[in-house]
Amino acid sequence: MSTPAALRALLDGRWSDLRERTRRQLGVVELPPHGLDRERHREHVLRQLRVLASAGHPSTGFPVRFGGGGDLGGSVVSFEMLGFGDLSLMVKSGVQWGLFGGAVQALGTERHHERYLREIIELDLLGCFAMTESGHGSDVQHLRTTATYDAAAGEFVVHTPEPSARKDYIGNAARDGQVAVVFAQLVTDGGEHGVHALVVPIREPDGSPCAGVSIEDCGEKAGLNGVDNGRLSFDNVRVPREALLDRYGHVAEDGTYSSPVDGANKRFFTMLGTLVRGRISVAGGALSAAKKALTIAVRHGETRRQFTRPGGGEEVPILDYLVHQRRLLPALATTYALHFAQEELVSTLHEVLGGESDVDDRRQRELESRAAGLKAVATWHTTRTIQECREACGGAGYLAENQLPQLKADTDVFTTFEGDNTVLLQLVAKGLLTGYRDHVGDLDALGMARFVATQFVGVVIERTAARPLIERLVGAVSGDDLHDRGWQLKLFEDREEHVLDGLVRRLRAAGDGDAFEVFNDAQDHVLRAARVHVERIVLEAFVAAIDRCPDTEAAELLERVCDLHVLSAIEADAAWFLGHGRLTPARAKSVTGAVNRLCKLLRPHAATLVEAFAVPTEWITAPIAQR
Amino acid sequence: MSTPAALRALLDGRWSDLRERTRRQLGVVELPPHGLDRERHREHVLRQLRVLASAGHPSTGFPVRFGGGGDLGGSVVSFEMLGFGDLSLMVKSGVQWGLFGGAVQALGTERHHERYLREIIELDLLGCFAMTESGHGSDVQHLRTTATYDAAAGEFVVHTPEPSARKDYIGNAARDGQVAVVFAQLVTDGGEHGVHALVVPIREPDGSPCAGVSIEDCGEKAGLNGVDNGRLSFDNVRVPREALLDRYGHVAEDGTYSSPVDGANKRFFTMLGTLVRGRISVAGGALSAAKKALTIAVRHGETRRQFTRPGGGEEVPILDYLVHQRRLLPALATTYALHFAQEELVSTLHEVLGGESDVDDRRQRELESRAAGLKAVATWHTTRTIQECREACGGAGYLAENQLPQLKADTDVFTTFEGDNTVLLQLVAKGLLTGYRDHVGDLDALGMARFVATQFVGVVIERTAARPLIERLVGAVSGDDLHDRGWQLKLFEDREEHVLDGLVRRLRAAGDGDAFEVFNDAQDHVLRAARVHVERIVLEAFVAAIDRCPDTEAAELLERVCDLHVLSAIEADAAWFLGHGRLTPARAKSVTGAVNRLCKLLRPHAATLVEAFAVPTEWITAPIAQR
Repeated sequence: MSTPAALRALLDGRWSDLRERTRRQLGVVELPPHGLDRERHREHVLRQLRVLASAGHPSTGFPVRFGGGGDLGGSVVSFEMLGFGDLSLMVKSGVQWGLFGGAVQALGTERHHERYLREIIELDLLGCFAMTESGHGSDVQHLRTTATYDAAAGEFVVHTPEPSARKDYIGNAARDGQVAVVFAQLVTDGGEHGVHALVVPIREPDGSPCAGVSIEDCGEKAGLNGVDNGRLSFDNVRVPREALLDRYGHVAEDGTYSSPVDGANKRFFTMLGTLVRGRISVAGGALSAAKKALTIAVRHGETRRQFTRPGGGEEVPILDYLVHQRRLLPALATTYALHFAQEELVSTLHEVLGGESDVDDRRQRELESRAAGLKAVATWHTTRTIQECREACGGAGYLAENQLPQLKADTDVFTTFEGDNTVLLQLVAKGLLTGYRDHVGDLDALGMARFVATQFVGVVIERTAARPLIERLVGAVSGDDLHDRGWQLKLFEDREEHVLDGLVRRLRAAGDGDAFEVFNDAQDHVLRAARVHVERIVLEAFVAAIDRCPDTEAAELLERVCDLHVLSAIEADAAWFLGHGRLTPARAKSVTGAVNRLCKLLRPHAATLVEAFAVPTEWITAPIAQR
Repeated sequence: MSTPAALRALLDGRWSDLRERTRRQLGVVELPPHGLDRERHREHVLRQLRVLASAGHPSTGFPVRFGGGGDLGGSVVSFEMLGFGDLSLMVKSGVQWGLFGGAVQALGTERHHERYLREIIELDLLGCFAMTESGHGSDVQHLRTTATYDAAAGEFVVHTPEPSARKDYIGNAARDGQVAVVFAQLVTDGGEHGVHALVVPIREPDGSPCAGVSIEDCGEKAGLNGVDNGRLSFDNVRVPREALLDRYGHVAEDGTYSSPVDGANKRFFTMLGTLVRGRISVAGGALSAAKKALTIAVRHGETRRQFTRPGGGEEVPILDYLVHQRRLLPALATTYALHFAQEELVSTLHEVLGGESDVDDRRQRELESRAAGLKAVATWHTTRTIQECREACGGAGYLAENQLPQLKADTDVFTTFEGDNTVLLQLVAKGLLTGYRDHVGDLDALGMARFVATQFVGVVIERTAARPLIERLVGAVSGDDLHDRGWQLKLFEDREEHVLDGLVRRLRAAGDGDAFEVFNDAQDHVLRAARVHVERIVLEAFVAAIDRCPDTEAAELLERVCDLHVLSAIEADAAWFLGHGRLTPARAKSVTGAVNRLCKLLRPHAATLVEAFAVPTEWITAPIAQR
């Protein structure tokens, strides 16, 4: 196998057949023309969504007996592949089949599956996932829409009690959605039972809003204008008792509430946990966009020439300049790293939640935490990388025809939706500190402070799937070569332990003082703990991927890519390593030298490395990227 | 005077009357609605441009005898004020009056002024500044359009010899421009004389292209879609001899070439030097956009609440969270710093080039270098700051109605146009190393290496206008208080000296080796040298501004803002300070603690600080920013 083919095979990984099939399937999808207005873009996307449905694209993740493929991991992979094309289509498909369809599947019972799933897959029923409210985005547990059971009528009354309780930024709401899965505080005579979800019709067959439902259009956005985001308010809207998606909370005809999960809090996080796929999908979609941007920018850097060498001769391709390499190549290396971490996460998702067997609580919590961490890190990486690619293509990068503007605008919200990145990293840190004792997000600041103060026994580095390999490499360190993988792994482990230890010491003080103040003052430390944890997980995934690469030459190239990834991460955090005596000044300087040398070394392989992402040719229309 | 009023007065500075007048004047300008299509946006902008012309807005910078105000610095300030509104209008006005009008004024002679200036000011003649070519953006000296003198006909023949020589990204070209100032290699029988500019008609009165002129539309862009960028090609287009803007190069009827400046190279940079205002204007416009974004994000952070404190109670305004303060407040502090540096630069421009007297060569070169450096730093700061503001406003920040998307999209190209930032910083470093021996950009890598190797005597820190004040503060350092301004100034000086010294040592090696390789390998060092130089200049400008603040309370507040600016800059570059023994690990840690404390301390003043920018109320339409 040639090196490019071997790289591609490794990147395509466990779901390589599906990836290849999807690449072919996607050939039927059309990209929208640039500068399309909002209404026409929305029409275009809906039309392409139907094309996807006809091609059988959405079925992968749904149960076999409703015509699906029963492949949970595969559903994330096929979503991710859409990220090479129009991201509005990707997001709209995610709203319809991932969020809306996924909620019906995960939170509903037999009755709901029978009634809805086939229609959802085939696009005979378009729906929304109405969770976020204007007043409550990150703090979903305190959303204010209510669903009150009226036993006499055998109905739920869905109501928006105040303007800030309107559902906001809801995809599929402004134009196409016929029903919405509405998250609301469930109230029965017996009391309040926390957030539950109900299927609520929002539009009549003629497209007008149902009685009692108000629909607003969120209007123009920075990007993703092919997705019809809207706002929903409910004025005492009545739905039958069966509208409740009742897998985790059931209301009997007489109003008696029952649930297989005790406690409103635990129930809430159990329900949220089933939706973890959304976050993982966003990370994957973001990385696809980063790969496409890098493909465009690297091709441009290879062909664009500017200035001659002293003494004249042909002008120099801009990718021959060190500063240009530094803009693109470390970002490319880290995209490889994140790709392998994503692949590992999707596999974990598939194993933990994709089977019929009972879910291991602790594994699920670790999965949620890693999904949160990787989503934050991958989407920020994407935002930065596309920005850098745009700038690296100069004026050409600002033209719509070269695709980078749309990529930037469309992906920008990924750092915000499916969990704000800043909030997600705080959840990751909580998980680490409490040893996944409870669902991510479950302990508030005070509860966590008490837990840390009274029960915390010490930081344990959680091993990833690559455990034996990592331990072997770490054990074999000798000498002080910066390129020694064992030394790099150990450095990351050690940093994580130290940062977590320090955080624990700070938080213990919270037992005595104002818990809010103590936590707030430590917030930057909390984020750092999460970040360095994710960096270690990502590195371990990269190392494991190289280890399973059967092709010697490809593996050798990947070793250098991994070096560039690690050493530029160390360079970026050099202040910490220097400040904590992990690097001497001389060694820190040699890290910078090594990054420069690796850039030079990898420069001739840049094209090979981006081509291995195998972005479908027909979706790279940028004139600057034509070969 | 109240503190807010005192802050505003200080920010408004030397041109405060003009700023106030412009704020009132701009009241007549309408913002375009969101989601306007390209054609309608262009129409809207042209209409508003006429409104500006009627209001007398463009006259400020033109000579008094053509109805202008003769106020060079003021012309930059009034451009900058447009940055609070629709940036397409700002850029279109910059193309028409700054670049096109400015070129006619600076490169033309009496005849051109008489013929064109009044029409340009009054918008009876719309024009382009046709410098950049598809193949040559940063390397303007080697552009390939030719203007060949035909002595028999007494005409110049303007020609595009190859596709990559077409003029590209030219504002006003796609729709409205009637003529273009075309930069071309001037050729006479006597030989080649380098780049010169000629006024070339491009459109007939009916709007169709002139014979021999091809016009293409650049189409949709990431932003600034109200500006009609286009491409121009010339097929042996003939213009009369008088079309040459001949202040720096004259061709007599018989084809004899003469110039007041000896040498094609020196002439080229002299001509470019007169256009320095464009770069300074872009920095100012960018900062206006950053101020507006910060105003919106801070107001949102004050009113948006999320999560309760442990124990309950009202939800917490998100600006009370440390991570949120860290996103916005250091960026706000640095915006203050850059504002004062910009104000100082505009004053210098006004003094160096705004009078009738001869220009001091050395001062002009220093001005060019500072303009290049501040443009790079201010536009990157703007890109990062608006991105951060967008994210800090979550989903709301992604909606067009909240204005941040347009601000981000419109300003994104500022890092690229009027000189790519990466190239500009290299020019700054060259100026520092060669002591402004020649015009910025004049020495190629080899020439510079030779200069450094043979003539360089040692790094001298160039003082800014605030020289005596800075020396007094640096001289008075005692103890080790992080907040001691003298200590901070000395730290920045010392860093600049050390980085430059190190760079000189590296470049001396170039005498022996392959100059390109030596330079290329040192490129990151070159950029760093420029960056730390600009950081020092900016800090000194901030210190000088506080010193001239007559209001004690406002000055006291600004001292803390300056601390936050400096200490977060030190924190961002902590790796260098640690690696070079300038900070101990303990002290680096205390810098982080001090940044956190300053965020908390300044939190209650955040609203005051953004309101002092005095963005016109009618131009902040974002629902999330309404008070």
